[in-house]
Amino acid sequence: MDPDTPAPAPTAAVLLIGNELLSGRTQDANLQYIGTRLAERGIRLKQARVVADDRDVIVAAVNELRAAHDLLFTTGGIGPTHDDITTDSVAAAIGVEVRPNALARERLEAYASRRGYPLNEDTLRMARIPVGAALIDNPVSAAPGFWLANVLVMAGVPSIVRGMLDGVYDALPVGTPVGSVSVVVFDLGESAIAAPLRALQARFPGIDIGSYPGRVDGRLRVELVARSDDLERLALVERELQALVDALPAQRR
Amino acid sequence: MDPDTPAPAPTAAVLLIGNELLSGRTQDANLQYIGTRLAERGIRLKQARVVADDRDVIVAAVNELRAAHDLLFTTGGIGPTHDDITTDSVAAAIGVEVRPNALARERLEAYASRRGYPLNEDTLRMARIPVGAALIDNPVSAAPGFWLANVLVMAGVPSIVRGMLDGVYDALPVGTPVGSVSVVVFDLGESAIAAPLRALQARFPGIDIGSYPGRVDGRLRVELVARSDDLERLALVERELQALVDALPAQRR
Repeated sequence: MDPDTPAPAPTAAVLLIGNELLSGRTQDANLQYIGTRLAERGIRLKQARVVADDRDVIVAAVNELRAAHDLLFTTGGIGPTHDDITTDSVAAAIGVEVRPNALARERLEAYASRRGYPLNEDTLRMARIPVGAALIDNPVSAAPGFWLANVLVMAGVPSIVRGMLDGVYDALPVGTPVGSVSVVVFDLGESAIAAPLRALQARFPGIDIGSYPGRVDGRLRVELVARSDDLERLALVERELQALVDALPAQRR
Repeated sequence: MDPDTPAPAPTAAVLLIGNELLSGRTQDANLQYIGTRLAERGIRLKQARVVADDRDVIVAAVNELRAAHDLLFTTGGIGPTHDDITTDSVAAAIGVEVRPNALARERLEAYASRRGYPLNEDTLRMARIPVGAALIDNPVSAAPGFWLANVLVMAGVPSIVRGMLDGVYDALPVGTPVGSVSVVVFDLGESAIAAPLRALQARFPGIDIGSYPGRVDGRLRVELVARSDDLERLALVERELQALVDALPAQRR
């Protein structure tokens, strides 16, 4: 391969599993962290899905998403209760058996013994791991996730997801990192910014430029964000964005 | 139809559109509200997806999700800037043109005039609406969403999404509402609860029983939630859940 041709960046999808995310009971707190870390790693997160605890639905989503992306990250459904069906569903999707795993059991036993918890049959359900999977460490509560084929299966509790993702981070494939620059405009709506911003985007078609409106303490606030893996051009765009903002009608300070 | 056979509940999907939701820049704050209100209305939210501002991706997702569900709700991408491509993408998916809409324009003009804002070509981009769509009122900043075929297109800013959804709520189809009951257990892990909970689920197969672990102020906390549209059986399950908790090893108060 031409050494000047960068390898295409790895792609990824996220599958958030749990009835509670669709019923309104629970606010997802995992996608943003996963998105942030994947961007740092240079992995392109293309899509996320939220599905219920339904085996057929999970199997179909796993197969569709893992076929279309280099990596698939799942969250949720690997605990000890009857509604935790992710392990079996992912194994079924990939076509392998789930079996008691000695290393996972050892970790659960050590954790329970340190804390004086009883260890029962249901605890040991969390030591059932698909054949051929590597364990993903759980630095919070011991019960591991796993990495099988191109699917990384993590817990649902946000602190555990962070620990698991941080633990596998160095083993993930690396892409050119996407840099991000931004400027903020107060007291003007997006309509007042749209024309020069469109012109800037036209001059830099390879840079992803976005405009994000909101309100802070009753004041209009628009954040203009540019993202690219071409950091040299991104630095150029940052100066252009600043010039664009400086040329807008005077803003209240 | 047998009058005792309830009509099947309407189903829905949500499509959250925006690069910023995948890059980690922005925490979605719309899915939980939409899920909560749809559950109240008796509409079954089956799936949510998060996709980038990419026309082909949006078109494909809209067509797939609207074919598989009674309703599809989208958020994001209907502002005045170049990265707001949802209106055109949804229109392309459904196969209709986008044209200037007199009523939408009137609202934008009235809003701008009340506030003394200038109205420019980019503001008026937000008055471009697919042919045949009904407007969805925006009580916050006037620029409307729209309802076209079975797709409801809303803004991305959470306060606007709430206003838009509340505004169309009474026009949505109605299903049997899903009730929810819950009990909370402190200082025990899920493993200690899994066996009696599994037995309870086996006795009430039609009731969706979930177990949601977490930590509050360093204490283990597990919430057991049962959901069903059969409110009589749900009341039974609520008593059973309470009995289950009462039979657990003593908890610290």
